[in-house]
Amino acid sequence: MKALLVSILLGLGAGCFAQQTEKYPLGNYQELTDTKPHDSKETWMKMNAPAALSWGTTDMRYTKLNIPDVKKSTRIQLKAWKGERVNAQAVLWTRNDLNHVSVAVSDLKNGKSAIPSSAISTHFVRYVMTDEFGQGCGHRPNKAEWDSLIVADALDINKTLDVKACSTQPVWIKIWVPSDAKAGKYKGTLTVSGENLSPMKLQMEVEVLNRTLPEPKDWAFYLDLWQNPYAVARYYQVPLWSQAHFDAMRPIMKMLADAGQRTITASIMHKPWNGQTEDHFDSMITRIRKIDGTWEYDYAVFDKWVSFMMDEIGIDDMICCYTMIPWALRFDYYDQATNRIQFVEAKPGDKAYTEYWGTFLKDFADHLRKKGWFEKTAISMDERPMEAMREAIKVIKQADPEFKITLAGNYHAEIQEDLHYLCIPFGQKFPDDVLAARKSKGQISTYYTCCVEPFPNLFTFSDPAEAAWTAIHAVADNYEGYLRWAVNSWTADPLRDSRFRTWPAGDTYSIYPGPRSSIRFERLVEGIQDCEKIRILRKELESEKAAGKLKRLNEEVGKFKFDNISGSKPSASTMVNRLEEILNSL
Amino acid sequence: MKALLVSILLGLGAGCFAQQTEKYPLGNYQELTDTKPHDSKETWMKMNAPAALSWGTTDMRYTKLNIPDVKKSTRIQLKAWKGERVNAQAVLWTRNDLNHVSVAVSDLKNGKSAIPSSAISTHFVRYVMTDEFGQGCGHRPNKAEWDSLIVADALDINKTLDVKACSTQPVWIKIWVPSDAKAGKYKGTLTVSGENLSPMKLQMEVEVLNRTLPEPKDWAFYLDLWQNPYAVARYYQVPLWSQAHFDAMRPIMKMLADAGQRTITASIMHKPWNGQTEDHFDSMITRIRKIDGTWEYDYAVFDKWVSFMMDEIGIDDMICCYTMIPWALRFDYYDQATNRIQFVEAKPGDKAYTEYWGTFLKDFADHLRKKGWFEKTAISMDERPMEAMREAIKVIKQADPEFKITLAGNYHAEIQEDLHYLCIPFGQKFPDDVLAARKSKGQISTYYTCCVEPFPNLFTFSDPAEAAWTAIHAVADNYEGYLRWAVNSWTADPLRDSRFRTWPAGDTYSIYPGPRSSIRFERLVEGIQDCEKIRILRKELESEKAAGKLKRLNEEVGKFKFDNISGSKPSASTMVNRLEEILNSL
Repeated sequence: MKALLVSILLGLGAGCFAQQTEKYPLGNYQELTDTKPHDSKETWMKMNAPAALSWGTTDMRYTKLNIPDVKKSTRIQLKAWKGERVNAQAVLWTRNDLNHVSVAVSDLKNGKSAIPSSAISTHFVRYVMTDEFGQGCGHRPNKAEWDSLIVADALDINKTLDVKACSTQPVWIKIWVPSDAKAGKYKGTLTVSGENLSPMKLQMEVEVLNRTLPEPKDWAFYLDLWQNPYAVARYYQVPLWSQAHFDAMRPIMKMLADAGQRTITASIMHKPWNGQTEDHFDSMITRIRKIDGTWEYDYAVFDKWVSFMMDEIGIDDMICCYTMIPWALRFDYYDQATNRIQFVEAKPGDKAYTEYWGTFLKDFADHLRKKGWFEKTAISMDERPMEAMREAIKVIKQADPEFKITLAGNYHAEIQEDLHYLCIPFGQKFPDDVLAARKSKGQISTYYTCCVEPFPNLFTFSDPAEAAWTAIHAVADNYEGYLRWAVNSWTADPLRDSRFRTWPAGDTYSIYPGPRSSIRFERLVEGIQDCEKIRILRKELESEKAAGKLKRLNEEVGKFKFDNISGSKPSASTMVNRLEEILNSL
Repeated sequence: MKALLVSILLGLGAGCFAQQTEKYPLGNYQELTDTKPHDSKETWMKMNAPAALSWGTTDMRYTKLNIPDVKKSTRIQLKAWKGERVNAQAVLWTRNDLNHVSVAVSDLKNGKSAIPSSAISTHFVRYVMTDEFGQGCGHRPNKAEWDSLIVADALDINKTLDVKACSTQPVWIKIWVPSDAKAGKYKGTLTVSGENLSPMKLQMEVEVLNRTLPEPKDWAFYLDLWQNPYAVARYYQVPLWSQAHFDAMRPIMKMLADAGQRTITASIMHKPWNGQTEDHFDSMITRIRKIDGTWEYDYAVFDKWVSFMMDEIGIDDMICCYTMIPWALRFDYYDQATNRIQFVEAKPGDKAYTEYWGTFLKDFADHLRKKGWFEKTAISMDERPMEAMREAIKVIKQADPEFKITLAGNYHAEIQEDLHYLCIPFGQKFPDDVLAARKSKGQISTYYTCCVEPFPNLFTFSDPAEAAWTAIHAVADNYEGYLRWAVNSWTADPLRDSRFRTWPAGDTYSIYPGPRSSIRFERLVEGIQDCEKIRILRKELESEKAAGKLKRLNEEVGKFKFDNISGSKPSASTMVNRLEEILNSL
């Protein structure tokens, strides 16, 4: 921090740009060693060519040091709606060292029409250290007590890569079909080449169907992945809330906007979640207690962050302000008398709690109304004892009865009416009448997963299709969307090691520094797209009175209900593939 | 702190009043045990009365558990100028437990005139744990490596005391002769009584001479004892800078004003002395770095402290602002981005240092001019490497060429001209021409003692007369006054244990909580009064051309020069007594 601060004070530019360091790589980097048993050199040497390339499936995390289990194929046929993003995965494997491998794609042509190569991105799939589900939640102080293995997850942004002898290197392909593409079959080529590798080609075909997926901002799915600006500042080694910090966050947050993200995660106190992530959240609002006992609030950081998300990124549905009921009931302020940070320790219901929060919330409401944000702002809570939540709600309503309130926690009939946005755990249900009443009032009702669920989940070791399954489940069980408590709460070394001191690996992020997407993130977006397609198809089939098709669709969607997964069930990938086949054939 | 803050927030009065606690007594308290060998019970039992009372001398710290070595006397004859404070010490010793002992004094009468008893205060002299000089400076992590003993020092404010069997209890008497008293001999009585003690009486006589000592605010002696408001807040358990805090500080600071204190100690950064005292100083000025890179300064605490000292206490000569060159070159500010205290690490000469201080000093100068304090304010330093001091001076002068600068450190010819107030260590000399030049420019030149000097000093084990000697030395060696780096930087348990983790015991304070004066503090004031008397007498004798008397005076004063104490010399008490005899007889 020392050098950093000094450079700010010196007004030097150097501190204001993100820097690649050995500790925090942004460009190329070395993966950790895969220590699992794997195919021997002899096995690899039996390959009948020095290197091989084939289409694979996006349902697989191909292991790094084994000859991939693929039925060799050089041609892939994908189906997509106009405006949809579709993914494919190719697999390269080699018995020799390959230097400076790169991947190129041609335009995909359909007569005079084309999906331009600029709409297609390719990514080396990179390997990251993971662990296993184990008991799910809880601390993992001793890494040796858990399995540790290298899995394919991050989608690299580096355009060339050296591929070591006797290893597999998957390549991820993402095609974002233009919304104005004509329906029809588009064909093109994927070429893998390298310094000591003759170009190898695969054929790609995308059949664009005559339906259109709206732009993400118009999706109905309510996506709430919590952002962590503090992790970005640390990893990119840029001063918090500096131009360089926003420059670093811009492409990350744009990924979220493109996934249909609705909410802005704002912290209105020090460590709203007790500093549980590698980079704890701090208060985006300055509170100063003057020696005359009055309070002064400063919203400069909050305003800058919210404006950035709304105006530059386009995420502007709700500002979720965490939290009035943290796990540790200590509330910070800058104390003019001591010139230090001090803490009020008080619990909801205490007079000191009411004083601290009530005074602030009144001022906050004024500020939000002046900014025109009041209607979009919510005071957000996590699950806490009912009495505490009730007391907090009382303080909020006293400060301004129109304040919106949100909760990510258990379903509580007693307070659900007060909660503009209520997100409940996987498996819990909103009673039908409550859900209907909430919808009619414009209240939002979603679900979440976290460290609790072995299935479905978005850990780095989770089956890729589970991410899509997660989204589809929301529609199947009548939630309006999905919440995950972290999308970029990076570990100390997130590109190389997704394990954290708590929870199964990957729980804390699905977007990597760079930013780099992941198999998980792309397949979550796939699932959300499926949800939009279901919504559109239902509407269409209902208005067409196509009862048979509607029944077939709903039957397939219904398989993603919680009640239908308790026993043996097909794998997530089988379920997702079947559903997607229907979505593209109705 | 928790309960305290909560009570502030609740607006309860309870937190706003100083509270007596077991940890931080303000009223009565138990002294620590004296573990030294002492007179046996048999010896005590040889006393020919159950209890005895006699006049003693203010040059003694009477031991607690020994029969005092006094020539029993029931009559004391003191001499004083009008307006002077004179001290006496009586000693009570007893072979029996004495309960609820109290001391009363009559008016001192001189015909129809009187020094009223309200001008006389009496104090039980309380015993505090001390150590020994040892190596002087440095850490003392293991108390067992040093002598530890109980010594008489604090002058209690409690009016009754239980005196245990077989112990000595000294009583300090302070008479502040009214300035308008008529010359002449005043006589009265001191009475010691108790529940199980027949009243015992001593005769007191004060001869008021026909000379007048000015009021402390008109003294020439430049006294600079550093105040520590943070220690007061901690010990009295009151919120910093609250009304209760100022209420607690008022009588302490009034003691300083009555001793002729000139300076206000202000801290303009976090830990100007690296937190070396039990209660570290914090910045009295709030610095906020906004996310747009600009600085905001808040002077609320500084203004309140300075106004209090000037307007309520009457100490208004100089505001000494510590420091731009702390031992640890870390400069704090409240960072809006991180909502936390951050530190700039930079050294004088660094661009970051210049930026941090230059920006602040310009704003500070503006603020001081608006308050009308600019001429009274100095940026104050302790001894640091020459290059650092030069660079700091450069930054100060750049910000405002008229800023006053002070240093407590070695004499440096290179920079002395820049130093409005320069205080150098005991034994160092200002060259005569420099001193003359400084005086003619209105610059102040004083000396200090600290942990370095075994003699003279103000440790709790120092001979009482050394405190008077310390002041007289300033006049003898042509300094304008004396500085001590701490007057109330209390230890954890200052009433009972004056030992600290560093330095000889008592180095950090001579005023006790209560406030209670000390033998050291009273005898320092005595010495300062002697200095004023020397000044007045010199002037008088010069104008009277009384060369013989002047020579006699100057010869006696000259014995207090540094150069005259290197070999064997009379004790401090002998020297001081001889001088005072002359001061009261010329």
